[in-house]
Amino acid sequence: MKHLLLPLTIISTLITPMMANANNSVDKVSLKNAHQLRDTALKANLGFDIVESLTVEVGPRLAGTKADLIAVAWAENKFKSLGFDKVYKQPVQVRHWERGSAKANILAPYPQSLAITALGDSVATPKGGLKGELVFFDSVDELSHANPKDVKGKIAYIDARMHRHLEGKEYSTTVAGRSIGSSVASEKGAIGLIIRSVGTDSSRMPHTGNMRYKDGVKKIPAGAISTSDAMMLMAMKKRGKAITVNMELNTKMFKPKTSYNVIGEITGSKYPDEYILIGAHLDSWDEGTGAIDDGAGVGIVMAAAHAIKQYKPKRTIRVVLFGNEEGGLIGAKEYRKANASELHKIKLAGESDFGAGSIWRFDSQVHPDNLDVMAHINKILKPLSINDGDNKAGGGPDVSILPEVGVPVFSLRQDGTDYFDYHHTPNDTLDKINPSELAQNVAAWAVVAYVAAQADEKLLALPKKKAK
Amino acid sequence: MKHLLLPLTIISTLITPMMANANNSVDKVSLKNAHQLRDTALKANLGFDIVESLTVEVGPRLAGTKADLIAVAWAENKFKSLGFDKVYKQPVQVRHWERGSAKANILAPYPQSLAITALGDSVATPKGGLKGELVFFDSVDELSHANPKDVKGKIAYIDARMHRHLEGKEYSTTVAGRSIGSSVASEKGAIGLIIRSVGTDSSRMPHTGNMRYKDGVKKIPAGAISTSDAMMLMAMKKRGKAITVNMELNTKMFKPKTSYNVIGEITGSKYPDEYILIGAHLDSWDEGTGAIDDGAGVGIVMAAAHAIKQYKPKRTIRVVLFGNEEGGLIGAKEYRKANASELHKIKLAGESDFGAGSIWRFDSQVHPDNLDVMAHINKILKPLSINDGDNKAGGGPDVSILPEVGVPVFSLRQDGTDYFDYHHTPNDTLDKINPSELAQNVAAWAVVAYVAAQADEKLLALPKKKAK
Repeated sequence: MKHLLLPLTIISTLITPMMANANNSVDKVSLKNAHQLRDTALKANLGFDIVESLTVEVGPRLAGTKADLIAVAWAENKFKSLGFDKVYKQPVQVRHWERGSAKANILAPYPQSLAITALGDSVATPKGGLKGELVFFDSVDELSHANPKDVKGKIAYIDARMHRHLEGKEYSTTVAGRSIGSSVASEKGAIGLIIRSVGTDSSRMPHTGNMRYKDGVKKIPAGAISTSDAMMLMAMKKRGKAITVNMELNTKMFKPKTSYNVIGEITGSKYPDEYILIGAHLDSWDEGTGAIDDGAGVGIVMAAAHAIKQYKPKRTIRVVLFGNEEGGLIGAKEYRKANASELHKIKLAGESDFGAGSIWRFDSQVHPDNLDVMAHINKILKPLSINDGDNKAGGGPDVSILPEVGVPVFSLRQDGTDYFDYHHTPNDTLDKINPSELAQNVAAWAVVAYVAAQADEKLLALPKKKAK
Repeated sequence: MKHLLLPLTIISTLITPMMANANNSVDKVSLKNAHQLRDTALKANLGFDIVESLTVEVGPRLAGTKADLIAVAWAENKFKSLGFDKVYKQPVQVRHWERGSAKANILAPYPQSLAITALGDSVATPKGGLKGELVFFDSVDELSHANPKDVKGKIAYIDARMHRHLEGKEYSTTVAGRSIGSSVASEKGAIGLIIRSVGTDSSRMPHTGNMRYKDGVKKIPAGAISTSDAMMLMAMKKRGKAITVNMELNTKMFKPKTSYNVIGEITGSKYPDEYILIGAHLDSWDEGTGAIDDGAGVGIVMAAAHAIKQYKPKRTIRVVLFGNEEGGLIGAKEYRKANASELHKIKLAGESDFGAGSIWRFDSQVHPDNLDVMAHINKILKPLSINDGDNKAGGGPDVSILPEVGVPVFSLRQDGTDYFDYHHTPNDTLDKINPSELAQNVAAWAVVAYVAAQADEKLLALPKKKAK
């Protein structure tokens, strides 16, 4: 996950139970099937097996790299071997940036190494590194108010802290230092940027993640040090002496490459041209094996669709594995553009991209006339300890750009308490996934997609939003 | 800590309360002081401040390196600034090995990188790495029974697992793969050794540690991969294809260097020539900052002695910071040798070297006639939630070689549940230490050393052991 599900965060205090009641909008046989589907999926291991397969047989798959294309081939093969009716891919032009090696050392007053990693898209330092005195800020906001005299010629350091939270709150605020910090620092005359990792762990493992240079600013190299190193650095700062560091980031930007959204479908028996889209993103950062971000999502939605297959859904279940989410929803934007003329056929969409923690709440963002279908879903999700949510779902990063063109979405909200311990680090590996929690996810996704596919009433586009 | 406190482990099921009762072997004023000392130390922050100072101002300090000598100078200065009466150092010849960079890649069937680190004293691989097929074993014991035909020309891989435990059980068995695995593998014709890290975490951070080549065997390179990578590798093995890897370890052995045991004393007011020795080791591995191993011990014993100072102890409190423990008790052996003629003056000794977890039990190994003094200590430790132990203490790694020459020892046993999550990894950093648990340690060490220093009865050498 790159983007925070900001709408979710904002509305988290506004839980209102959905207004409609379950009625005869879904037939009894389908409802019985949905219960069975849920209980079977809860006991199955397919979701975890898929994540294992992806992380073991492909591993990290940064967009633009060879491994990215290996992942694309893996996804096509996996869809086929799971018996999806239709498997195809859609080209996406992606940036191709590689990390290379990274190191940093405190030169004075107390020489020590720092565990550092480059931020995605950062330019390289000169060979041998970039040497400078650190100037300290608590947040990008404080940096933006700094006197350029205090920053000029120095390496800006941002020590923004983040704490564990069920919904990953604080990510949206903390991540600003990562995403725009280098541009703000550059405008103040800094020669480089180092941030405290945007993470909730206390570990010597830095968190990478995407950033973008503002047009027109001088591009300065940007890296993140681990939270352990950040604490050490702040303890060193207390000692009152100027701190100089050398940072060497051997990043490289190549020419753009072609990657793909990979799509697998279980064709609908009654309304084959109406789609329930469930997605995840196939790309990952390069340092872990992309297990929680977003191998878990890939396993969840593939396994959910596979479980639905035997019940011959009325509408088509379309699984979309988006390319290059980490680069800024690149595959999702291409998907929306390439399918512009038929987005109205997508009757409900959702993406799983927040790890593999248990789901605790179901939100939708559907036409009010279809809330009765959501009410059926709510009832079937209850035994999974999933609460009713509201009708203001974001849908997940790649899917978040669909409601504005009328596509209804849903969110199955996961426990993300430890998500930011591992997010975007080498520690994003299979062993962080609890197979039973993953199975609960598969069960919930199968229920939502299947019940929506079975609804006998028309599933409507979202009403147009009033201009603000 | 390098060596497991094996005697402790063996006797852990044999707890017997000490037989003697507290009597008038320690005067009332001293006992009152001991209570006060305990309560004051529990509230003080000096122990943690010392570890912070060492980890921030020195950082990692592998024996033989420049940083090791910086640590020696730091220790002398710290003793002086804390007002120790006598500060001196004792030269120790140490091996000087450096890790250099390390990397490993699975070449087939599924190319992926592995997080690896060299084992201490390992020879380097050829430049560009050592390529070979992996041959799998669950333990060094299984490897030792292998048919050489199955091992010859391959890289042996040992997947011995270790689980969390209060006392760090399983270390003594699991560590064999690390310490002697390379020799066993070499004797079977292997060209290299890779082990699953000897650790209890699930993290992508390999654990280093010492090993030794048996005389006469061909020295083959040896590294440890992280537990996360080990799990991935075993999942890859399940897929049934031969796995080949390339491992590159750029280690280097230099000529031996001089390091030091650094010693600080609070001179006794009544028996200045009788010593209560409390120790820790000053050296550390190179990848973390040596906070739990053994910055914590350094902080605990320095702070404990400092707390005792104001009470003018009758016997001398001698704090010994041993050099190169990680190389195999090198400083301790030199200490015993250089002080051979006056070891009888050490009336009680103990080393803190198992992290910073709370102490839960007090053991001694003293002359039976002095158990009454231990009983006084037991009573004063009780409010710290420290239980009575037995009279079979090991004393701690560096001190474990003193009972055989008659020196009585004690052990304050710590909760090591998470010790092997961080031990010998880059994650051995200050943020892993809980300041209040560290303060409980300081309070306990201060009580033991002070009460022993105050005993009015003769503190006797250990009775000679019968030959087995």
